[in-house]
This record gives sequence, structure tokens and C-alpha cells, in this order.
Amino acid sequence: MKMNLNRRDFLKKATLTGAGFVTMPSFSVAKGKARANSNVQVGMIGVGGHGHGHINHVLQLENVSIVAICDIKEANLSRGQSIVEKTTDKRPIGYGEHEYSYREMLVKEDLDAVIIATPWRWHIPMAIDTMKAGAYAAVEPGAASTVKECWDLVNTAEETGLHTMILENHCYDRWNMAVLNMVRQGVFGELLHCQCGYEHDLRGRIVTGKKSGVSEPKALGGDYRSLQNIKRTGDLYATHGIGPVSQCLDIHRGNKFMNLVSMATKSRGLKLWAEENLDTDHPAQGIDWKMGDIVSTMIKCNNGETVILSFDTRSPRPYSNMRRVQGTRAIWLQDGEASSLDKSVIHVEGESPHHEWEPFGPYQEKYEHPLWKRYQNEGVVAGHRGGGFLKVSGFIEAVRRQIPPPIDTYDTASWKAISPLSERSIAQGGESVEFPDFTNGKWMTMEPIFGLTDEY
Amino acid sequence: MKMNLNRRDFLKKATLTGAGFVTMPSFSVAKGKARANSNVQVGMIGVGGHGHGHINHVLQLENVSIVAICDIKEANLSRGQSIVEKTTDKRPIGYGEHEYSYREMLVKEDLDAVIIATPWRWHIPMAIDTMKAGAYAAVEPGAASTVKECWDLVNTAEETGLHTMILENHCYDRWNMAVLNMVRQGVFGELLHCQCGYEHDLRGRIVTGKKSGVSEPKALGGDYRSLQNIKRTGDLYATHGIGPVSQCLDIHRGNKFMNLVSMATKSRGLKLWAEENLDTDHPAQGIDWKMGDIVSTMIKCNNGETVILSFDTRSPRPYSNMRRVQGTRAIWLQDGEASSLDKSVIHVEGESPHHEWEPFGPYQEKYEHPLWKRYQNEGVVAGHRGGGFLKVSGFIEAVRRQIPPPIDTYDTASWKAISPLSERSIAQGGESVEFPDFTNGKWMTMEPIFGLTDEY
Repeated sequence: MKMNLNRRDFLKKATLTGAGFVTMPSFSVAKGKARANSNVQVGMIGVGGHGHGHINHVLQLENVSIVAICDIKEANLSRGQSIVEKTTDKRPIGYGEHEYSYREMLVKEDLDAVIIATPWRWHIPMAIDTMKAGAYAAVEPGAASTVKECWDLVNTAEETGLHTMILENHCYDRWNMAVLNMVRQGVFGELLHCQCGYEHDLRGRIVTGKKSGVSEPKALGGDYRSLQNIKRTGDLYATHGIGPVSQCLDIHRGNKFMNLVSMATKSRGLKLWAEENLDTDHPAQGIDWKMGDIVSTMIKCNNGETVILSFDTRSPRPYSNMRRVQGTRAIWLQDGEASSLDKSVIHVEGESPHHEWEPFGPYQEKYEHPLWKRYQNEGVVAGHRGGGFLKVSGFIEAVRRQIPPPIDTYDTASWKAISPLSERSIAQGGESVEFPDFTNGKWMTMEPIFGLTDEY
Repeated sequence: MKMNLNRRDFLKKATLTGAGFVTMPSFSVAKGKARANSNVQVGMIGVGGHGHGHINHVLQLENVSIVAICDIKEANLSRGQSIVEKTTDKRPIGYGEHEYSYREMLVKEDLDAVIIATPWRWHIPMAIDTMKAGAYAAVEPGAASTVKECWDLVNTAEETGLHTMILENHCYDRWNMAVLNMVRQGVFGELLHCQCGYEHDLRGRIVTGKKSGVSEPKALGGDYRSLQNIKRTGDLYATHGIGPVSQCLDIHRGNKFMNLVSMATKSRGLKLWAEENLDTDHPAQGIDWKMGDIVSTMIKCNNGETVILSFDTRSPRPYSNMRRVQGTRAIWLQDGEASSLDKSVIHVEGESPHHEWEPFGPYQEKYEHPLWKRYQNEGVVAGHRGGGFLKVSGFIEAVRRQIPPPIDTYDTASWKAISPLSERSIAQGGESVEFPDFTNGKWMTMEPIFGLTDEY
């Protein structure tokens, strides 16, 4: 990858706002500050499971330095620092005395980019603070708390000229990128309908808070998954599904989501799991989980396509992303027997036997995305099946070039906004909810940016 | 099957109403008219493809006579008469001079039951006339024209004490009845979510009107499918999907549909198919098909379950019923690779390997429905995979016993009403539409009647 760093040249004065324990000074960044020959300076906020993975991804990139790490868990922090030190001989500065220590990091360090892997409710506030501090932000998938904070994210990006990218690894899945490639080459004809979702039996993790990356002191009632399932009902993890689908449908690139309807089933799975797997005096017994076991969402798009989204982490089932991409010429499906992630099926009019499915394998080979071709040749690094590395690499490359990241702030805001929008529809008994146009009309003229070449 | 005919004992005075070419006299049926030792007297309206199949099914039953046949196509009529004559040595009386000749048949013949296999828009009017004439009606699947006519059907049934059964063969599918059996035995725990639909590439048939059983003089623009696709957009063939699902969910038997939301994609497939497969001067060129290519519907049930229904006969794809029955203990899926009708997959908590699908075959054997066990032992007659015979046999048995048929008038009205309800939701941009309670509250106390034993 070539260094092509046109350093941000716009930041005059940005102030971190909002409640906090640190008083934030105004600060300025020199216009046109030259970075062409220097490293991309990265800060990390939250280095539990996912953040830890990101450290490893970043360390594989050239001309990138992790200069600071923030985590309120001392164990996470020191582990993260040690990993970086081991590889680079330079120990990143540590932050993490309290929940707002990350702001101290943003002010004190001269960062180009910040990777945020904290509990869901922190993603957008931290991304906003990051952009206000003059850096690009990258955030993990997960629900927004409100539609308003999604607007705040977009407004901050537009005000600062900086960007937030959601690190949606499923967009980088080999099969999803091959399908996107096929869509762009017209194999599917005109797209009509997509299905997608996140169907993953996580009952144990949700109920006990284990393996959930909770950065809260108490396991149960932690922020990441447990508390969200106690307090909310809606599609809280839509991005794995909607990410790749948005790219196929050219959302924000000539198309947009119009309205959305969600329905949730009754809530049974989590309570039942606790009853059958935990001691009778476990604090997770008898919790009144608000979250319905299965949440279904339908979205209508401006160009006449429909999307069905499924969210099910509360019932016993094999993992699935329930993928379906369907057009006037072909249909691709990944579910059931075909839900093994590399075992999907396809039917292409004129090519496939009449009324029959074919295994996707040969199509995968034929339509392999250029980025994946390159990364397979170079020996791609694993982690969420390769997508984990590619998303971080794509983000850093955008920072280096000072261009919008391959998944931009509008995508991040829209995908994360599905959660509060679906909550609203469910609360209103399945009423249709208008989808906000976070681009303010720019969707009509913006061009695709994701996966255009083999570069990032 | 034992004869146990408690002949209708209620009909005092019924009048066929509505516009028609025949002036209908009032008529009465003797109260308690004894039929215990006589045949069930059947009339047929419409003996094209499906009606022809029904004749063959009826002829295999004991103590049943097809005494009259009505069809406005002379070829259909005489073929139907000849088949019956060949088997029974008695030629049924023929009707069919004009569209309302069936009413002449209803008045002149002393019928116990009428089987209706005409274009969709005639199903409910003919069933109403049939009940008013003192007989049970059986109708093919297909869309109702309006919600009002569904109410008229229910009201007529309640006024006459007679019944209409929708001949939904998918309810009698081996796998669906085995799954129903498993649901009733608690294998799925408490049900949460179902998916179902009718996904069948019928573009050629719809566009040309061929093989569509159209009883209209002109092929194109015929009533059955072509015209429906020109004039309407909604789920017009919901019953294959919703029938078996309704039984699993105990709809009208302690549960009910609450509200419904539908979305349709743009309409592309039919026009495109005509352009690529027909002469440029073919009358099907350039038609403005109103029907969206893929129609998706979500339904919320009173007991907290959700249903997703798919209707897609306008795009290239392998056949599928997109079945999914999901509960707190198990999930069954029939789609994609598993959509070959006898190749579905299942995951049962505690029995299946963790996070893995199993083939449904062994479960099918273990939970085979008693009716199917019996019919397989007796050598079931084919036709829509056996379900075609079982539905007619079940209907005739209910007539013989003068009891509500296994799929009753409320089911018929509700399942057929999905079409106009989904049309309404689509027309309103995806707004939620309340589902009428055709039972007027009786759903709270009515008991299941479908597939209870191996008798019918």
C-alpha cells in the first residue's frame, strides 16, 4: 500500500462537548499539517475481545502506530499495551482511570484515527468525540441508543469533514463480496428482494453476561448484551445482515431505505434458559427480559426493492445469516442446509438447470472479488474469516488517504439506526416507521465506494 | 369408512341471491331428511385441471356419487361426465350454458356437497350459493376479492349451519402433518415464529394464461392468474403457506391473527419474460402488470407469535414453500438446498448436535401423522403428493357425518382474506392492517379439528 497522506486541512477549532469528568479544552490542528511521510497514529478505546483482535490487525499494517490505548479494565489495558510493545518495542500510553478517560486520550494524543470497541451505548458518543478531536473513528457493530444520536454522528462528520466507519466485517465476507461483484456485473439482473439477519444462539452469553465483552464491573446486567435484552425489544444487531445487503442495493448510492416495520415475538428463551441452566438463586433467575425472542423487520427501498431482516439470539438453532439476494435474473440463498457459511446455493436463469439450485462454490471462484483475490494471494490473516482484518485495513487506508472510508458515516448512522427504529415500530404494534434520510438528499448523487478495487 | 350420515336438519328456506341470469325460486329441504343409507350426492362446478383431479379422487371413495357437473367449457364438461360414466355406468347431469348455470344445478339437483374448482373470483360467491342451496361447499385455494365477501361466506355458513372447506392440499402434506404432530407433542416447545409461502416460477403461465385453468374464452387476460396479476398487487396465493402454519399455531383454536403488514417489490418479471419469450406483436407485450414481483407479509398473532409469508411467482427460481416452524425447543426449515420437498432440516435442542442441522427424514418417520400412516398402509393415491386425495376425502367424510370439515369456514375466510388485506397494506405504503376476527370471539373456545385422528 502506498503512502498517500493528505492530512486533514480543515480543523480549526473543535470542542468536545457533553457531560464528562474531564474538562475539555478547545484545541486546534494546524491546517495542512504534513503527515505524508509519517505513520498513521492510532488510538484504541476498549481492548477486550474485539479490540484485542483489532490491535493484532493494525500491527500487521505498515506505517501505522498504536500510540495510545484506553480501557477501564486494567487487565485489558496492560495486555493491549504489552502486545504492541512486544511487536514494536514501543509501549503505547495507557488511559482508563474512569469512563471518560478516553477524552483525555483524545486531547493529549495527536491521533489520526481511533478504533472503538466498547459496549454499544458508547460507540456513537465516542465516535462523535473522536471526530471533534480531529480524528477518524471506527466503531464496532451494535445498536444505536436513539435516532437522534445517529443524526448527531452525521452532523459531526459533516461539520468536521471527518468520518466514522462501522467495522462491519460481514461486508468483507468472501461470499458477500463475490455476490456484490456479481450484482455489479449484472448477473442478478435488477435486484428485487433481499433477506438477511443474525441468527445465533447466544442465550447463555446474554443471560450470564459471559463472553460478551462487557466492560462493566458486574457481569450480569452488563451493558453489551444483558442489559440491552432486559430493557429493549427491537433488532439490536442489524448490521451483520443489512451491511452487505445495503451495498448490493446501492443504499445511499442512488437508493435509500424508505420505511420499516418490525414485529417481535413473545419473550421466552432467556428466562427458560436461566431456569434450566443456572442455580435457583442465581441473580439471572426471574428476570423479566423485554426482548422478544425473534424480531423480524421489513424495509422498503426507494427503488422498489424489499428487505427482510431477522434477529434471533434467544432461541436454540444453528447459526445463520439467512441471506438471500434476489433479482430478475438470479437468486442466491444461504440458510438451512446451505447456511454453513461456505455452502450457499444459487439459481441463475439460463445457466442453472431449470427450477434447480446449484452450489455456490464455482460461482464464488468465478466471481471472487478483486480484494479477496489479492488478499488470498498475499496470505490473508484470519479473524472473523478474514473480514476482520480487511475492515481494519480498509479503515486505516482511508485514514492514510484522508478520504471517506469504504463504509462511511451515513452507512454507520443508518445501519445502527435500525435498532431504535425497529423498537419504535414494535412499540407501536407493527406500525410503519419512516426511515430518516441521513444523507439529506445526497443519496441521489453519491457514488459507490465500497469494494471498488483490490486496494482496500 | 363407516356411513354415519346425520343429514342436515335445519334448512327451512334458503334463497340464492345476487345478480344472475336464472331466477331462483325459494326452496325447502325436509327437516331431518334421512340419508343414512344413501350415497353422498356430489355436484362439481368447474372440471378443468383441478376439478378433473377431484373427480378422480371422489370416484375412489365408497358411497359417494357425482350426480351433476357444471362447466361452461363443453369439452371439460363432457370429459368429466364420461370419466364418471366409465367408472359408475351412470352419466352425471350436465350444466354449463352460461356463467350462472351452476345455480340451476344447485336448485334442480338434490346435492349434499359441491366441489368448486373455478377461477378465484367465483370461489366465494359459488360457495355462498351452495350453502344457501343446502349443501356443503369445497373450494380451491386462491385469493378472495374483498374482505366483505369473506364475511358473507362466514355469515352464510352461520345462518345455514352448513360449511365451506378450502381444499388446501398443503395442509395434508406428509411433512407438514408430521411437523403438526411434533408441535402437538411438544417437540418444538412453545411456538414463536413461522415462515411460509409460495415461491414458484410461473411467469410463462401467468403471461400467456396457459396451463392456468382459465375458464374464460380468451387465454390472455383470463380470470385465474393473468388478469389478477394485471389488476392487483398483494399476496394472492397465501393459503399454501398459511394453511399448515395456522394449524401449528392453533389459529381460531385459542389463537388468532392480530394484524398484518405487506410490502411488494417493483414489477419487472412478467414484462421481461414477455419481451424475451413472445413475438413482438403478442398481445401480452407491453402489459402494465400491477403485481409486484415479490410480496412479503408479516403477521402478528394473539399469543405472541409472528409469521412471515412470501409470494413469488414472477421471478426465476426453484420451487419453494419457504417453511420454517420455530419454537423454544426446535426449529424446522424447508428452503434452499433443503427445499426439495422431502429434504428439509431440523434442529431439536438436546437431541441434535449443538448448533447443527439434522436431516428431517428420521423425524418424519418417528412422528408420521396417523392419517398418513393409515393411508400409506392402504396405498394412498397420488395427486399433489397425496394431499390432493386426502383433502377431498376429508371433505366428503365431514359431509357424510354432517360435522364441520377439518378445515372450516372460518379458516377458509381468513386464509383467503389475506389477499385483500395485503393489498390494502401495500396500497397504504406498508401500514399495519387489522385482521378481522371472522369467528366473532369464538376463537377463544373452539377446539382443534384438523388431523386429530387417522379417520379423516
